[in-house]
Amino acid sequence: LVQFIRGALGNGIEAFGLRDDAGVLEVPGGGPLVVSVDSVVEGVHFDLSLCRPSDVGWKAVMGALSDLAAMGAAPLGALIALCVPGGSGDGSLALGVMAGVAEASAASACPVVGGDVSGAAELVVAVTVLGTVGPAGSGDPGPGPVSRAGARPGDVVVVTGPCGGSLAGLRELRERPAAGDGTVETGSAYRRPVARLREGALARLGGAHAMIDVSDGLALDVHRLADASGVGFALDDVPVAAGATLDEALGGGEDYELLIAVGPAELDDLRAAFEADGLRELVRLGELSANPDERTLRGAALERLGWQHRLG
Amino acid sequence: LVQFIRGALGNGIEAFGLRDDAGVLEVPGGGPLVVSVDSVVEGVHFDLSLCRPSDVGWKAVMGALSDLAAMGAAPLGALIALCVPGGSGDGSLALGVMAGVAEASAASACPVVGGDVSGAAELVVAVTVLGTVGPAGSGDPGPGPVSRAGARPGDVVVVTGPCGGSLAGLRELRERPAAGDGTVETGSAYRRPVARLREGALARLGGAHAMIDVSDGLALDVHRLADASGVGFALDDVPVAAGATLDEALGGGEDYELLIAVGPAELDDLRAAFEADGLRELVRLGELSANPDERTLRGAALERLGWQHRLG
Repeated sequence: LVQFIRGALGNGIEAFGLRDDAGVLEVPGGGPLVVSVDSVVEGVHFDLSLCRPSDVGWKAVMGALSDLAAMGAAPLGALIALCVPGGSGDGSLALGVMAGVAEASAASACPVVGGDVSGAAELVVAVTVLGTVGPAGSGDPGPGPVSRAGARPGDVVVVTGPCGGSLAGLRELRERPAAGDGTVETGSAYRRPVARLREGALARLGGAHAMIDVSDGLALDVHRLADASGVGFALDDVPVAAGATLDEALGGGEDYELLIAVGPAELDDLRAAFEADGLRELVRLGELSANPDERTLRGAALERLGWQHRLG
Repeated sequence: LVQFIRGALGNGIEAFGLRDDAGVLEVPGGGPLVVSVDSVVEGVHFDLSLCRPSDVGWKAVMGALSDLAAMGAAPLGALIALCVPGGSGDGSLALGVMAGVAEASAASACPVVGGDVSGAAELVVAVTVLGTVGPAGSGDPGPGPVSRAGARPGDVVVVTGPCGGSLAGLRELRERPAAGDGTVETGSAYRRPVARLREGALARLGGAHAMIDVSDGLALDVHRLADASGVGFALDDVPVAAGATLDEALGGGEDYELLIAVGPAELDDLRAAFEADGLRELVRLGELSANPDERTLRGAALERLGWQHRLG
């Protein structure tokens, strides 16, 4: 994906941070602005027989916000481009999607600051999010946005929560679709994921060296972090969400937990900061090494599982 | 459109400026950030038998940038969400679109700072643009973003150039499709419109009271400006692009010229600033009045022509 865009734009784009979860932009007179765009497309990313229109809106916003979380940024606002099939003549599909957008916006304190609605053959929701790393109104902006590329040999890799819940939720929905009235909360990890904004901000303030969100599967995203940082990894453990299998934890996407590389000396303080904030306990996956070819889980080679975006 | 989103989000959104061409966002420690998103969808906004993929990319970027121009903002960056049909297996459609995006980006000094590529049933390009009104590095940000709503009775309404060229170009293309090799520049006003960023910035610095871009047709957009400002208008003249008809100038969209409401005392200075900058001469359309029900062209009622976005 990134390689593709980079190719089309003649490599100039690398300078703008596209190798990270989000781009970083200097605003004249302001701090760095962290920006990202993410689209969800009917038939590619979701199936309306398995989730409500409001779930689609919620997920689209949370998926985009997760890219801010992975940089340690706090949201400033979101812009929504909504394309809806002409057949939904009464606008109920679009209204449902926007209701979910509004819920996610409220839950994340991320106001919707722009939008566009168009007809289309299928439902598409493209969400652009803008964020900042400076605590609003403070003189001290703290550390800058956290890249994927800053991890160092000897760092510990932790994750903010168990993985595989989203894919397990999808499996559950395929076996037993959610009630249309919203009373049955089947597959909620799939339908209502949460961007780990607070966790990402704490990790940035706690000196994390590198971060990435688990959007395409832990076993793919940990490789990406290692690739960007030029390191290897030896993992001992993978936390599996309740109801999920290890394969789902490794290969499922859309969990939106954060993988964090942090120096061993900083880990205890980071754990304490998470505890003081009432967040879930960080789970240690393993360590990073200087050999970029070392990519193991419990001593065996870890394949690049997970959902790789493909063209064509 | 805006009413629709506002309804879905429970009216909270008006505070975020969605009634204007672009939203305005305060960045902690920085000046106002001007943001907008615009989508183009195959079969709704363009037909690939009438224009090249690079034209689609160019138009998508310029259409979004035109919203910045209408606020008097200078571009900081763009984010591209690209959805391409799976059938274009070799990626040539996506590469063509991105080539046009890169051309428009270079022509506007607006770097691409983020992107997302997905499969889809038809080609969709959603472009988010970010801009600023403060001259980079200067201590004085000048006047803020120009709204649609600031026009006053007695203001003169001017337009930055003749209208109808885009629709006339589309008609021309339907009669005689462009050569695939790009040597025949049929319909270039349709295929390669230009966002009037310099004009918008000069108008803002020159004290314009209100602006809007002619994206959906002059005869619709002048009503919108009058609606937002609570004024009426009496127009004497409409400049018609070479090869276009008066109906095309009134009802065609995507011209991306700017309608500017300016105090009569400021008009001469604004004309001089345009001339000093080598820009085309501003064309006077008429005057604004205190009676919001007065909506005339040469004494006759001016209908709301133009392309109104519809759902369903």
